[in-house]
Amino acid sequence: MKTMQARSLRFEDGKLSILDQTLLPQTERWIVCDSLAVMVDSIKQLKVRGAPLLGVSAVLFLAYLTEQGRTLLELKQAAKALYDARPTAVNLHYCIDQFLKVLADDDANRALAILTAEAIFTEDVELCERIANHGADLIHDGETIMTHCNTGGLATVGIGTALGVIQKAHEQGKQIHVYVDETRPLLQGGRLTAWECEKSGIPYTLITDNMAAHVMASKKIDRVIVGADRIALNGDFANKIGTYHLSVAANYHDVPFHTAAPYTTVDSDCPNGAAINIEQRLADEVRGFSGQAGNIIWAPANSKTYNPAFDVTPATLVTSYILDKGVLTAAQLQGLFKAASKNEKVI
Amino acid sequence: MKTMQARSLRFEDGKLSILDQTLLPQTERWIVCDSLAVMVDSIKQLKVRGAPLLGVSAVLFLAYLTEQGRTLLELKQAAKALYDARPTAVNLHYCIDQFLKVLADDDANRALAILTAEAIFTEDVELCERIANHGADLIHDGETIMTHCNTGGLATVGIGTALGVIQKAHEQGKQIHVYVDETRPLLQGGRLTAWECEKSGIPYTLITDNMAAHVMASKKIDRVIVGADRIALNGDFANKIGTYHLSVAANYHDVPFHTAAPYTTVDSDCPNGAAINIEQRLADEVRGFSGQAGNIIWAPANSKTYNPAFDVTPATLVTSYILDKGVLTAAQLQGLFKAASKNEKVI
Repeated sequence: MKTMQARSLRFEDGKLSILDQTLLPQTERWIVCDSLAVMVDSIKQLKVRGAPLLGVSAVLFLAYLTEQGRTLLELKQAAKALYDARPTAVNLHYCIDQFLKVLADDDANRALAILTAEAIFTEDVELCERIANHGADLIHDGETIMTHCNTGGLATVGIGTALGVIQKAHEQGKQIHVYVDETRPLLQGGRLTAWECEKSGIPYTLITDNMAAHVMASKKIDRVIVGADRIALNGDFANKIGTYHLSVAANYHDVPFHTAAPYTTVDSDCPNGAAINIEQRLADEVRGFSGQAGNIIWAPANSKTYNPAFDVTPATLVTSYILDKGVLTAAQLQGLFKAASKNEKVI
Repeated sequence: MKTMQARSLRFEDGKLSILDQTLLPQTERWIVCDSLAVMVDSIKQLKVRGAPLLGVSAVLFLAYLTEQGRTLLELKQAAKALYDARPTAVNLHYCIDQFLKVLADDDANRALAILTAEAIFTEDVELCERIANHGADLIHDGETIMTHCNTGGLATVGIGTALGVIQKAHEQGKQIHVYVDETRPLLQGGRLTAWECEKSGIPYTLITDNMAAHVMASKKIDRVIVGADRIALNGDFANKIGTYHLSVAANYHDVPFHTAAPYTTVDSDCPNGAAINIEQRLADEVRGFSGQAGNIIWAPANSKTYNPAFDVTPATLVTSYILDKGVLTAAQLQGLFKAASKNEKVI
């Protein structure tokens, strides 16, 4: 496979490495993904994360196994394990399906499957660029934008989705300011988006999630832009927990609310948000914080928690969808995607 | 001064001690407040916290200094330093004013001032009891209630305000369940309310703040009850950051929203929320977490933050005010308190 390089993923000298995002921003440690156990663990523990990046990294790992001469059975078992590692982000499933469809139970297709993996990497970069350009067209000079979780170069292999839009507007010379939600429990905003904004020189202010509504009421917020992990056909979409709360607050304060994602995030087989499977995660994430400093529990050790990794924002609260295909309303989204189920399920 | 004992404050053997709430729930360490520097630091660092408790502890400390034979000038200087330690919670200012009014520049009034401090302690217990009873009358068997920050026995010298209402309903045998917001950045919900619920056997579920709207949408939440740090005459009120976000979410989901507080929290001199001074706190609180395990910074070390300790919820989003005087609408509250400014400012 050719050499590929992104902010948080690289394939070189025949090996796939991912940047351990649980240790950022203090420590930049790369993990060589040379076994299925390491790869699945990295996905489950969010060492590699972000809906687009999950899809690309999983398929590059399958291509790596293919290069290593694993049997078709082994490849299919690996695909199943990767598929099940996280249930909500549809890109993971979509990319794996694309790879398996090309492989098609035939050893003769191995080279083509590897090329497919490379193409998925290249396509993600291009999709991000298109999303960023469409979205940046919405942003006026002087705007203040709020975002959630991390959707930049760390979450994709390109410029990003929601943060890619912001990055592009900044590159265009627009004077923007970004309010970054810290995004408990895993703090992807406070750790990762803040770090990416620092790297890119984008002016930003970090806030706790519960400040967002207060900031909307007391300061001028021009729009909220977030990513998506799965967009249903009717426009409802799943994204990192806290997105729904932002959409409700934006609605109350008449602030435009957008989600930015590639077409691979739209699940044509999913009619609406109620059909989206929401991943539940471990209690200790809510009881405290786990990072470079180790596992810290600040709540009572046995406290009962609820820890959905995602929530669903209804289409009625979304101003527009910033896709690679353009900026769409929910009706336009539905029209574009309902024609045919894009994803012939393989697993 | 007589011996007084509460969950997080005690006066015995002539000394005032407070429970260091920054180390809870893992460590129960008491601090002897034997100097003004220790007392002011304890207030500023939220080792002692909660609007009612702040007022009681400040005035007991002034009574302690009075017993120690400090001059009137020293007492007034101490009062000023305590007054300025936190700007938003009005109870602190109200209680100090009460004490100074009795002292009235006359050494002959020292004994009476000490009795006033004792009476303020006793009154807080009684006010909490009345609030709890009025509020518990609202709660039906089987209700699920959401709360924010900590407003229980740790925040007062009695049963508490919002959490006192919940505690009372539980004691009445009502089968209730509480969703506890963790309340970033200082985690008074995750650390303190969860701990108090454990101690009292109240069934609860701990969530991150950004899950609240999702929980309202996906589960049955019957009401939200929070405390208050200052209630303006028109019913707007300041409370721990994140309260406003909850009120917006409750409004969207048609969930009744209440604030519970003693009359000492109503500031008759404050016409509305815009007139409330909101305390801004240090950036490191947002950049990470400080507790038993030390100071942990997970965001970029120099990240720019915004850290208001409180936000203002407008009266339009409040269903009712659970006061010691009863359950009131905003109009009733205004009628009751506008007759006379209750607090003749001394400082």
